Amino acid sequence: MRGETRTPSTSPRISMTTIHVGCQLNYVVHSPSIFLLNCAVSQNSHQRVRAESLEILPFQPVEECEVGPLGNRVVRLNAPPGELQIRYSASVDLNSETVDSNDVLESSYEHLPGDILSYLNPSRYCESDKLYRFANGEFGHLVPGYSRVTAVCNWTFEHLAYVPGSTNSSTTACDVLLQRAGVCRDYAHVAISLCRALGIPARYVSGYAVNLYPPDFHGFMEAYLDGRWFLFDATRLAPVGGLVRIGTGRDAADVAFATIRGEVGCKEVGVWANDTNPMDQRLSPDNVQTGVSSA
Amino acid sequence: MRGETRTPSTSPRISMTTIHVGCQLNYVVHSPSIFLLNCAVSQNSHQRVRAESLEILPFQPVEECEVGPLGNRVVRLNAPPGELQIRYSASVDLNSETVDSNDVLESSYEHLPGDILSYLNPSRYCESDKLYRFANGEFGHLVPGYSRVTAVCNWTFEHLAYVPGSTNSSTTACDVLLQRAGVCRDYAHVAISLCRALGIPARYVSGYAVNLYPPDFHGFMEAYLDGRWFLFDATRLAPVGGLVRIGTGRDAADVAFATIRGEVGCKEVGVWANDTNPMDQRLSPDNVQTGVSSA
Amino acid sequence: MRGETRTPSTSPRISMTTIHVGCQLNYVVHSPSIFLLNCAVSQNSHQRVRAESLEILPFQPVEECEVGPLGNRVVRLNAPPGELQIRYSASVDLNSETVDSNDVLESSYEHLPGDILSYLNPSRYCESDKLYRFANGEFGHLVPGYSRVTAVCNWTFEHLAYVPGSTNSSTTACDVLLQRAGVCRDYAHVAISLCRALGIPARYVSGYAVNLYPPDFHGFMEAYLDGRWFLFDATRLAPVGGLVRIGTGRDAADVAFATIRGEVGCKEVGVWANDTNPMDQRLSPDNVQTGVSSA
Amino acid sequence: MRGETRTPSTSPRISMTTIHVGCQLNYVVHSPSIFLLNCAVSQNSHQRVRAESLEILPFQPVEECEVGPLGNRVVRLNAPPGELQIRYSASVDLNSETVDSNDVLESSYEHLPGDILSYLNPSRYCESDKLYRFANGEFGHLVPGYSRVTAVCNWTFEHLAYVPGSTNSSTTACDVLLQRAGVCRDYAHVAISLCRALGIPARYVSGYAVNLYPPDFHGFMEAYLDGRWFLFDATRLAPVGGLVRIGTGRDAADVAFATIRGEVGCKEVGVWANDTNPMDQRLSPDNVQTGVSSA
Repeated sequence: MRGETRTPSTSPRISMTTIHVGCQLNYVVHSPSIFLLNCAVSQNSHQRVRAESLEILPFQPVEECEVGPLGNRVVRLNAPPGELQIRYSASVDLNSETVDSNDVLESSYEHLPGDILSYLNPSRYCESDKLYRFANGEFGHLVPGYSRVTAVCNWTFEHLAYVPGSTNSSTTACDVLLQRAGVCRDYAHVAISLCRALGIPARYVSGYAVNLYPPDFHGFMEAYLDGRWFLFDATRLAPVGGLVRIGTGRDAADVAFATIRGEVGCKEVGVWANDTNPMDQRLSPDNVQTGVSSA
Repeated sequence: MRGETRTPSTSPRISMTTIHVGCQLNYVVHSPSIFLLNCAVSQNSHQRVRAESLEILPFQPVEECEVGPLGNRVVRLNAPPGELQIRYSASVDLNSETVDSNDVLESSYEHLPGDILSYLNPSRYCESDKLYRFANGEFGHLVPGYSRVTAVCNWTFEHLAYVPGSTNSSTTACDVLLQRAGVCRDYAHVAISLCRALGIPARYVSGYAVNLYPPDFHGFMEAYLDGRWFLFDATRLAPVGGLVRIGTGRDAADVAFATIRGEVGCKEVGVWANDTNPMDQRLSPDNVQTGVSSA
Repeated sequence: MRGETRTPSTSPRISMTTIHVGCQLNYVVHSPSIFLLNCAVSQNSHQRVRAESLEILPFQPVEECEVGPLGNRVVRLNAPPGELQIRYSASVDLNSETVDSNDVLESSYEHLPGDILSYLNPSRYCESDKLYRFANGEFGHLVPGYSRVTAVCNWTFEHLAYVPGSTNSSTTACDVLLQRAGVCRDYAHVAISLCRALGIPARYVSGYAVNLYPPDFHGFMEAYLDGRWFLFDATRLAPVGGLVRIGTGRDAADVAFATIRGEVGCKEVGVWANDTNPMDQRLSPDNVQTGVSSA
Repeated sequence: MRGETRTPSTSPRISMTTIHVGCQLNYVVHSPSIFLLNCAVSQNSHQRVRAESLEILPFQPVEECEVGPLGNRVVRLNAPPGELQIRYSASVDLNSETVDSNDVLESSYEHLPGDILSYLNPSRYCESDKLYRFANGEFGHLVPGYSRVTAVCNWTFEHLAYVPGSTNSSTTACDVLLQRAGVCRDYAHVAISLCRALGIPARYVSGYAVNLYPPDFHGFMEAYLDGRWFLFDATRLAPVGGLVRIGTGRDAADVAFATIRGEVGCKEVGVWANDTNPMDQRLSPDNVQTGVSSA
């Protein structure tokens, strides 16, 4: 049974845009290896794939793993030694639902649906259990709601320096809060951890981002407010209205773009996300504050 | 699509026993509080609840949260200030499926079902990503299969001291591997982490345990082998044949017996798990090595 | 050779007061044990011991270990099984040298004496190497000098909660910066770490503190400014003018009051530090900001 | 007063050899910077500098900081923007005192000199306080003495992989014990931490190492046994008889070869340590087990 029945007080505004996204991954495979790829865009009511393709050179059969409840699409393939090129591309209709963020309240703990509760738990890279006093000291006095999550993201943006190479695959939100530097996944982990410590369910989203420079895969977060999920990007590197979801998880551990078993060298990663309507104001890099409901 | 089609080469032996389990939790509530309880036994093909009751004194209405895919049954209730007594009891038919552990192989990475893959990911208390070299140095040379997980559990048992109070709610598997002491949840976290680092999906189980002394809630683990889950208990404090599952999760963060929002003091916790057939050899404390398939 | 030759621009004001300090430590010794005690007050130009006594009951011979360059007085004794009572008391003339803190500049790195440089290094509980960006982000823009160390102490006071029991003997400054709670030693570790990260030599001082409530041993810090050491106490629990030094070290690891080898239970710790002139304004708990040069 | 009076039961064998050591450090200085260099060999009864030179190009005056009680020789210089070349070279008479390691006992805690006690304390990179159970579980049953330290070094050698780049300047012994990989400084930190946890004073030594391949600065450790310090090198990359001491400290934090304030890029580091008598058996890479008393 779902406890959450409140209707948002304003109707969301829906707008549509089409984005072309994709990636080209070039590897040198040294020993027979298994690849798990999670770079295909997710299908849901907010984004519809019009067309997509996945090319493997030289050709290898791929197996699509079962799509779990989060909609992550994982593909598995065996690669023999030699060069391996993986090219994914898709055209995606993005239906953004924007709402007036002033109307978005926090869901009360008492009414959180059962399947949302686990997004309050700490996870590998988001040790929210260590941060109750920190989060409540910094944000506990703020009015609950969308604006409090914005305050968390603003704090994260203001206190961290975006420094490529400053973190690695074992760096956690707590590490980043001390060293005060990181990249997109670290910004997301910090914001997620602080939200959870405040009692706001939060999770990690991997994706493509329009107008991200330099182009790359992107990591951001969403918070559960008022009965639905809203996107936030504490890096301010790309407009939330142009984020195309690939995977959803508790943190980055759940949505690696490529997981590889075997001896493999990565030669090149190319990523793109192009707006078909470059004049779309929603996708302006300056527009970082609109409430975008995502799920 | 499920990749795993191999049939175990021996048919499991099924035996049934009935266990009476339960707990009595007494609190003093200082401010209006919300309780999430996860102490009711899970329902699945291996354990059937014949009868159960949950009493709240003074009476409070309880809400059963949606049961997720893992079968965890979470109950939510509001408690006003004052004394609060919670008493849960159940009679459970336990259908243990035991197999000859020599026949149980590891599932190959190539064939792991998609919904199992996330149990290879590191989690809050099981930082398997830091332990690849450790796990492979200690266990990499062993024959893959049930016996390798047994070796992991034996190592855990032999290198840790069971010391109540030596760990707290933020202690992780890595902490325990250094300090070499912990309690049941820590033993489980260490074994889970080492399994994941070896490429064996593993997860945490909370439950009741027959013949556990002193009686308490118990935490143990299961590993995914040969297309199914098998129970292991690195503490050797109770026979796996007498473990009654409450909750299943990535680690202890997912299956707290009670999560409380509000000012509450815990006065007393009583837990019981009684075998109706005390002569059952399967439930002898000495029988810690039988392969018990659990899900 | 000493690089520092600058004379402080104002002469310090010297005032004297006499403090009676001491402690009573009661143990139950279960097996033959060795005690290292570091509870006797240090002798230096700022504090002179007029009289002191150390009583061990039942009598045990004590060995005074060599006094190192920091002036820590360590006493070693063997204790047979049974009750053990240790009572130390001393009357100390405290010559406080107060200066106008506005005149106190930071020593430039270029001119720091060689024997001071090691107090810029990170230590067990003060991981300053992890905090460069943190410290410089918070305090880098402030005018160097006494007031910047005061700002560090104010930040520490304002962001931490004083919570007895919230930390243990392995808790570090980084742990405390995340959990935002600690006791006196943790406050000192945080302030020391931030100072070192800013390039200000800082170290730990253990001692007796007049007007500390409840009475206990105390831990505070000193920073090297303008060619001398100044005392600071980020807890604001006692006036720096009433701090009587026992030990000096890189952090609390160096100045444990008692280090014990053997099976020993601690029954009771009593500590006192009484001002002979209760009207002394310098020792008012409100007077926490006067610059007190200590060494 | 020194508690230690026991005479080693065998006289040490003294042999002398001359080693030519040195380094060439090339930097590009981007902003006016201060360098602290600790690359000159230490002077003590075991090693005598016959000749040495330090060249700075372009010429800058250098200041020799006060030599502390440990004999570390630190030089400070200001560097203007531009290229900076530092070249140090020395000829050192190495008087190795080798003893029969079977005769070397552990000093009892009761008799450790006061100035040695601090080498039992945990330090930034050697968290011995977390490892009591670990160390005693692995080595507690062994006969105390030189051979127990050898067992610690053997364990370190056998359980770690020497992997350049696997650690960084914030990596501690505990990190390395988990990730099971490191470089020379990490091997030393692990061995030091385990020794301290066993009650054996241990410290870090930086130096030049004959027959190290590829040539580089080296980090190793020494343990206090039987009233004196003995050298150990858990990496087995160079014979202890050919180690030339530069600096001594609690851990690597105390003896960085170069500490730099300012924006500086390192272009090239060259290090050499050449034996003048290549036939010297003592300096054979195979000879890693002789007891060499160092201080």
